[in-house]
Amino acid sequence: MLTLKYLPITSFNENIAYLHKDCITYRVDDLNQLTKIEIHGGVKTVYAFLQIVDDAKLVKPNEIALNSEAFDIINLPEGAKVSITLAPQPPSLNSIKRKIAGNVLSSAEYSAIINDIASKRYSNMDIASFLVASGSFMSAPEVLSLTEAMVGERIISWENQSIVVDHHCLGGVPGNKTDLIITPIVAAYGLTIPKTASHSLTSCAGVADTMSVLANVDFDEENLKKLIQKNNGAIVSYSALDIAEANKIVANVERQIGITQYEHVAASILAIKMAAGITHLLIDIPVGTKSRVKSSNEAMRLRKLMEYVGDMLSIEIDVVITDGSEPIGNGVGAVLEARDVMKVLMNKKDAPQDLREKSLFLAGRILEFDPKLRGGQGYAVAKEILDSGQALNVMNNIIRTQGQAPQPQLGKLTRDIVANTDGIIEAIDNARINKIGVLAGAGQYVGAGLDLLKKVGDHVYQGETLFRIHSCNATDFAFANSVVDGYNGYEILNQDDED
Amino acid sequence: MLTLKYLPITSFNENIAYLHKDCITYRVDDLNQLTKIEIHGGVKTVYAFLQIVDDAKLVKPNEIALNSEAFDIINLPEGAKVSITLAPQPPSLNSIKRKIAGNVLSSAEYSAIINDIASKRYSNMDIASFLVASGSFMSAPEVLSLTEAMVGERIISWENQSIVVDHHCLGGVPGNKTDLIITPIVAAYGLTIPKTASHSLTSCAGVADTMSVLANVDFDEENLKKLIQKNNGAIVSYSALDIAEANKIVANVERQIGITQYEHVAASILAIKMAAGITHLLIDIPVGTKSRVKSSNEAMRLRKLMEYVGDMLSIEIDVVITDGSEPIGNGVGAVLEARDVMKVLMNKKDAPQDLREKSLFLAGRILEFDPKLRGGQGYAVAKEILDSGQALNVMNNIIRTQGQAPQPQLGKLTRDIVANTDGIIEAIDNARINKIGVLAGAGQYVGAGLDLLKKVGDHVYQGETLFRIHSCNATDFAFANSVVDGYNGYEILNQDDED
Repeated sequence: MLTLKYLPITSFNENIAYLHKDCITYRVDDLNQLTKIEIHGGVKTVYAFLQIVDDAKLVKPNEIALNSEAFDIINLPEGAKVSITLAPQPPSLNSIKRKIAGNVLSSAEYSAIINDIASKRYSNMDIASFLVASGSFMSAPEVLSLTEAMVGERIISWENQSIVVDHHCLGGVPGNKTDLIITPIVAAYGLTIPKTASHSLTSCAGVADTMSVLANVDFDEENLKKLIQKNNGAIVSYSALDIAEANKIVANVERQIGITQYEHVAASILAIKMAAGITHLLIDIPVGTKSRVKSSNEAMRLRKLMEYVGDMLSIEIDVVITDGSEPIGNGVGAVLEARDVMKVLMNKKDAPQDLREKSLFLAGRILEFDPKLRGGQGYAVAKEILDSGQALNVMNNIIRTQGQAPQPQLGKLTRDIVANTDGIIEAIDNARINKIGVLAGAGQYVGAGLDLLKKVGDHVYQGETLFRIHSCNATDFAFANSVVDGYNGYEILNQDDED
Repeated sequence: MLTLKYLPITSFNENIAYLHKDCITYRVDDLNQLTKIEIHGGVKTVYAFLQIVDDAKLVKPNEIALNSEAFDIINLPEGAKVSITLAPQPPSLNSIKRKIAGNVLSSAEYSAIINDIASKRYSNMDIASFLVASGSFMSAPEVLSLTEAMVGERIISWENQSIVVDHHCLGGVPGNKTDLIITPIVAAYGLTIPKTASHSLTSCAGVADTMSVLANVDFDEENLKKLIQKNNGAIVSYSALDIAEANKIVANVERQIGITQYEHVAASILAIKMAAGITHLLIDIPVGTKSRVKSSNEAMRLRKLMEYVGDMLSIEIDVVITDGSEPIGNGVGAVLEARDVMKVLMNKKDAPQDLREKSLFLAGRILEFDPKLRGGQGYAVAKEILDSGQALNVMNNIIRTQGQAPQPQLGKLTRDIVANTDGIIEAIDNARINKIGVLAGAGQYVGAGLDLLKKVGDHVYQGETLFRIHSCNATDFAFANSVVDGYNGYEILNQDDED
């Protein structure tokens, strides 16, 4: 038996166990490879990767230390006695080899893989292998299998609600926080909309990041239900809810390796929405050469895939394909985006019209999930709710009920990027804007981002500001500056060119 | 500036930097993802992954601690002042996305990937992604590009030697340590054979493991040259030589994810042999339904691939396809295999004849690389060298020169697995034998393994021992026992069946 010790080290989702090189129960001094162990003694067996320590001040030969992630799971006090055994390789790893070899995996295989991921039997390396192996090819039934496996055991039930709606955007378009406008409109109309939002994976801000600037977003199921009871709508972080746990682990690895495939995106979205108890889901696929989805063909393939999986899971899915050619709104990054959202809800004159129009269009489509509404009337109803100030009222209620966030700080290190010629803005490159924003710190820090003062079609004079960089620290600021001078993402058509 | 501290934690090849959550130079308290940093101040910039510590006794807010791997590289004393910056994602990661999408990568892309791996810019997750993405399809020119990239900058040069030979076996056949017999035969003949051997990746013993039971195997280039000067031959560990460094990092990840693709195997073998200065290489591909290479077609594909890459790199390659239907020799695991090898070299009556015959066949093929030898004479010359005791003499010299190892300990926890019926051994399943051996601790502990007392064609009586398990500790012993009762890998044809 070994004595449990806590090492307060955060390893970003991997369980690590530390043994002294002269450990009294397991010979580790000549281990030459990463080894996975099982730790027994708590309610649940904990799987962890072994690291070897050569300092009795950190870990004594009769101790086993766990990092924060593993210590949380074992749920025992320091000093408790635990035993360890070597963990065998999970048999589901063989399915990954079969996938590399080009096989179609069965539903049982996906289920085994996801169960092993959820119980931390996979290393992050193993998860990366699974993502890459399955990423190059998955049949539609495989995506269904993966989705079903990722839904997990807990599904939130909304008693007496025949329609529970949500919206998800595929992303790739900076700004574009329509959810924060759609949700209060739909809730004001009277439909139930428990919007589960994610934090940024590779973008400048996820919906959860932007909402977190305005209100608390972390709620468990019970408290989410109270929010919905009060306002019909809520915008909460999916990661705080105890649903679709395996997907969280997978998403963390996706973020780290920077690889996301459509099939995984489809499975991930539908698993989360299914687990959240959604019955009617609007999916927005923005298409643009510099967006995430690059062509109508790709968008159509993804639409068919999501419709198929949705049908099999009995979720009503409406997929709309929208213009993803340039950023939506002016702000890119959580604080700046929240500013745009509130301007639209307040019907301010300088509110970004593209964000307003897109939100009304999408909200209208969601309202039409209501059988009582005539086809084609959604937009007008949504517009009335927004124009009349009802949407703003509901948003203020939602913010109050969720708990207002402290006044956010916009990054104080700024730089104006100016036009190098007179002309008309012909294009703004989403991918480039996102990259500059991420380097400026957006995604990590809510106050970082880009403020786009000019959009496509606007006229600029040489020396006029195109956009402003906001960073929260010098490292990020330097990173953004190091790339922005090479190519800032704006294409200006000099009017002389037209002569 | 931060003060350098050493945390004696071994993380199996990944550089880790630990910062306090209130670090004075970089805001880490709300980091929500794995972050890679560059540490400046040493001769070389060190790349490391950040973990966050919430205990000033481990790391103070003005300190940065490095694990063993990173501390070795930075090569500065504790207390030194260093600075950190965020490390950008290496651009070569984009090539991995291109590979997933089915593209053929250029030579420059492979070169960039391997350079980034060698300088530790890739996480183990990134390396796993690369291996899986490229594993599903690589063209022959891509394998060549990968091989060239992995050779690296240092190539051992053997002055005045027009022929420098080596042998490599693709593996998958337990036992089978022909190298320890081939090398002294070839050296006794007078050819230069600096055998670079590897430690076990997924098998019960690598050639380096088995040799390490007899002699020291860790030498640098200078000392390897001294060994060769003395005996013409040596059997040393590739990992101790300062060559093909990126391949070592890649192999470590392959070991951990348990995925090895032919294309990577081919590139890895040829890169190591190229870097070791080999001019003539014999490659043995054992084929068997339970071996690594399962069919003649697969073997032929691999042969053509290695011949192509060898030709382009101007290494003379002779590929032989051999019988991989059952284990070779009786011992499986380093200590037991070393025993078999010495029996063959000593011409003992109970020496395993299959090991002897295969070694003579392969040694004969290598001798025929010598233009002075007539085609077809190799085997007879090899047999004469072995039968006359010259090979044993040279092996004893090699062992003495390399430094004799202490008397090895065979695992003391044993169990005899017996026949459940009378009959003739019809088949022995390599994969199963390897699995039982690995679970018994072989590959990690030299003394663990299986002693195969019966081979294919032998007669057994019910209750007679088929093989004996040797383990060095109770955990491993229990693992082996937990699987061996289900299926022990032996198929016995009951003679009554033939009636």
